[in-house]
Amino acid sequence: MEAKNLIDLDNISLEDLDEIIRFAGVIKENPTYFVDVCHGKIMATLFYEPSTRTQMSFQTAALRLGCKLIGFDDPGSSSVSKGESLKDTVRVISNYADIIVIRNAFEGAALASSMYSRSPVINAGDGGHLHPTQTLTDLVTLSYEKGRLDNLTIGLCGDMKHGRTVHSLIKSLSKYKNNKFLMVSTPELKLPQYLVDYMEAQGCEYAYADTLEEIMPEIDVLYMTRIQRERFPSVEAYEAQKGVYVLDKKKMDLAKPDLRVLHPLPRVDEITVEVDEDPRAKYFEQTEYGMYARMALIIKMLENRTADIPPTKKSTHDAKCTNMRCITQTEEYLPKLFREVDGDLVCKYCDTRIKKK
Amino acid sequence: MEAKNLIDLDNISLEDLDEIIRFAGVIKENPTYFVDVCHGKIMATLFYEPSTRTQMSFQTAALRLGCKLIGFDDPGSSSVSKGESLKDTVRVISNYADIIVIRNAFEGAALASSMYSRSPVINAGDGGHLHPTQTLTDLVTLSYEKGRLDNLTIGLCGDMKHGRTVHSLIKSLSKYKNNKFLMVSTPELKLPQYLVDYMEAQGCEYAYADTLEEIMPEIDVLYMTRIQRERFPSVEAYEAQKGVYVLDKKKMDLAKPDLRVLHPLPRVDEITVEVDEDPRAKYFEQTEYGMYARMALIIKMLENRTADIPPTKKSTHDAKCTNMRCITQTEEYLPKLFREVDGDLVCKYCDTRIKKK
Amino acid sequence: MEAKNLIDLDNISLEDLDEIIRFAGVIKENPTYFVDVCHGKIMATLFYEPSTRTQMSFQTAALRLGCKLIGFDDPGSSSVSKGESLKDTVRVISNYADIIVIRNAFEGAALASSMYSRSPVINAGDGGHLHPTQTLTDLVTLSYEKGRLDNLTIGLCGDMKHGRTVHSLIKSLSKYKNNKFLMVSTPELKLPQYLVDYMEAQGCEYAYADTLEEIMPEIDVLYMTRIQRERFPSVEAYEAQKGVYVLDKKKMDLAKPDLRVLHPLPRVDEITVEVDEDPRAKYFEQTEYGMYARMALIIKMLENRTADIPPTKKSTHDAKCTNMRCITQTEEYLPKLFREVDGDLVCKYCDTRIKKK
Repeated sequence: MEAKNLIDLDNISLEDLDEIIRFAGVIKENPTYFVDVCHGKIMATLFYEPSTRTQMSFQTAALRLGCKLIGFDDPGSSSVSKGESLKDTVRVISNYADIIVIRNAFEGAALASSMYSRSPVINAGDGGHLHPTQTLTDLVTLSYEKGRLDNLTIGLCGDMKHGRTVHSLIKSLSKYKNNKFLMVSTPELKLPQYLVDYMEAQGCEYAYADTLEEIMPEIDVLYMTRIQRERFPSVEAYEAQKGVYVLDKKKMDLAKPDLRVLHPLPRVDEITVEVDEDPRAKYFEQTEYGMYARMALIIKMLENRTADIPPTKKSTHDAKCTNMRCITQTEEYLPKLFREVDGDLVCKYCDTRIKKK
Repeated sequence: MEAKNLIDLDNISLEDLDEIIRFAGVIKENPTYFVDVCHGKIMATLFYEPSTRTQMSFQTAALRLGCKLIGFDDPGSSSVSKGESLKDTVRVISNYADIIVIRNAFEGAALASSMYSRSPVINAGDGGHLHPTQTLTDLVTLSYEKGRLDNLTIGLCGDMKHGRTVHSLIKSLSKYKNNKFLMVSTPELKLPQYLVDYMEAQGCEYAYADTLEEIMPEIDVLYMTRIQRERFPSVEAYEAQKGVYVLDKKKMDLAKPDLRVLHPLPRVDEITVEVDEDPRAKYFEQTEYGMYARMALIIKMLENRTADIPPTKKSTHDAKCTNMRCITQTEEYLPKLFREVDGDLVCKYCDTRIKKK
Repeated sequence: MEAKNLIDLDNISLEDLDEIIRFAGVIKENPTYFVDVCHGKIMATLFYEPSTRTQMSFQTAALRLGCKLIGFDDPGSSSVSKGESLKDTVRVISNYADIIVIRNAFEGAALASSMYSRSPVINAGDGGHLHPTQTLTDLVTLSYEKGRLDNLTIGLCGDMKHGRTVHSLIKSLSKYKNNKFLMVSTPELKLPQYLVDYMEAQGCEYAYADTLEEIMPEIDVLYMTRIQRERFPSVEAYEAQKGVYVLDKKKMDLAKPDLRVLHPLPRVDEITVEVDEDPRAKYFEQTEYGMYARMALIIKMLENRTADIPPTKKSTHDAKCTNMRCITQTEEYLPKLFREVDGDLVCKYCDTRIKKK
């Protein structure tokens, strides 16, 4: 595997991705072989905003490899947040830990961290921007449960507009051949145009549906997510429509015997409890696949550790990102890094496109 | 050992109990033998309400066996509490952890958790309902310090009405032969009638006393607990009586040379600091016995792990528990489970008796 | 090594200190040899006030030795703080843990803890009083980076009046031969007279300077600390002077090629980011030296563990410490311990001098 950090799944080659997915399967089949493979190593989980769920999945993965843990999960009251820059924290922690997992409310924080870290950095969520190990979890689950990542008809239900996990999954699955996406959502919560363009560029088929019932007989996979109440245009619309986006036993009866149902969890009420008993429901198993995926990732990342301080980067442009949630807003020492797309500038930290004047 | 979970010490056979107690003694004598016996295992401590003391005792026990730790201790601000059901959390965590320790403010939460967990569940306190490892700690301490659990005259001082630890200890010691209970409390804080009935059914002797001085010469064991100020009928009553329920050096002078003083801790002022120097004071050692008790329990529970999802339970009755602190009040998917006692229904989660209409 | 606890670096003999410093160097050169040397041991970090930075440095050191961790970092909401005395907590925790690291806002809390602990106690900060492992970190860094602890010209910049780390460093370095201190500060923030007396008694040279520029060409070491804005006599004074106490590239250009710059971190803006690239800047490496220093300390302290409860101490005088931040103010059972200096009493917990009437 080539990658030194995991910031964005898009920057990982398909070869690297396949290597991690295959390796996760090996671990699943032989978990006891791996009990001590990272003995003597330390992982730091730097959670600038609390996410018990994500943090526990990383911690479990590390511990199952014999890796030890340091970190924090809510630095609000701690000295870490007392005016210290992200750079200084990362420089210090990468003296302590062999691998760093970071979650931060600002977009691009993981990329920024990797620029100063002597140890590999894994992005565990940078605001609403990226959360690559969730998508890796989804891919490992699908690969193992369906035996393939291509030639799948994938149902996607929920909020297609804001759902970070759905966007990332679509991007990743579009890279494999002959995948088809059937999307069930409200008209207001359709997929953003740039992702529709992306699917078309990759030659993927896609279609919209108004109800789950329409797509159930056809799909190989159903990826459920939640539509938050406040996303509906009105309380009346919510009350009238909410049942449409709920998976229940009756809808499951319409589906193929080898359907697999996934959900990034936590589930609220968008899947009824009775569906849990259905052997096609795999959302709880998905968390176990996520553990194997993270174990594979940690092993591969630790193999790539050099302990060098990365070479200093210089600003590429004399410009400032306009996204107020970009990490460059608060960490002013960061070099200004942009790539040019059709003459516009795109911030390398948060992927915000800044229009030419 | 037969038990798959430890929810209620009452559901553990005397054989199982004796096995744990004996095994705790073996560990105490040979702690270094056990340093790695749970190597490669993970324990999750799910503390829905913080209890640093209890959590640290479990964590120490697990770590001393080479078991690793995940968990949380105050999910108020974390995603765990964001609308996820207890069932879903337990299903996910039991994919991560080989054994689960749970503390929750709702009565019956540990039983409910065990119904969905692939891993053994240990109850570390479910509201004011049960706290079986505290009682196990008391039994191990007594067994080791006195050499027996029968033929004991046990002094109990403090709040007999609300004291969960005292109730549980009485129930457990009543099962052994020829134990006699001497209780010192205020008239308002006497033992509940159902426990008096219990002692009588088991053929135990018992008596009430107004002062510690009366019972000190006779007792083999003194189990001290605290009477909270607000339990006294008035501030005047508190000021007038508080000294009666305080153990000091003068009262210790009345006791046998082989008396043992226990206390579940934390101690506030119901035992004076000077008593700490008395070799008969064993309340600090008690915490060490608790560590060995929990080590024994963890080893035995891990031996019983099957990793199966428990079979689904169906409601036994069309009724609803009336206890507002019962876990069935908030987790609505739980089957309604009751046992019938003299025609009344008793909730299996919280042991509340629902009268026939 | 003789010392059973590390409360105050002043109570450690120079032989013990040199042993730790040498041993830290051995660990730095051969880190993998030490991966399991404390296997089976448990360290408790009792942080009565949060200090993520210090706690992580201790945790990393322990984990790199195979030592396991229990503890808390903010007992405000936990049962530990519910009226339990420091003594009781320490008695219980020292049944669980083989070594205890304590941080507490009250001065003398570490000394008080060591009087009841079966396990060695390391002071990780007791209010503004002592923080010996920071100074140990500084000494290990200097020893390794300069090859010696004597014959050094040491620049000290910042708040000389309130800076605990600077005071402690001066005291330690004064014990080595031919060290010279050049201090840069505001007139209001000069070194307290008792430390000037101390340097003179040890025969150390010292001088004051108004600017960093004056001393840069001469110094072997620059120890930077921050002057907090509120320490300046006025906002105008702050704005006018702040640049004087900031280390930047221009000032670095005046210095020797083998200068070493240290800083206890966190750094705010008293060292500009550009200095980070200078190979003479060693403040990030300093945290790594701190890890080795703490590893050495933990190993040596664990070797000295007897697991005995320390013998009870009696009050030496019928007096009460007048320092409201002294641990004796809140923990009333503590014996009153004083030493006599020129007829005055000096509190052994907090070093406050109580004048004769």
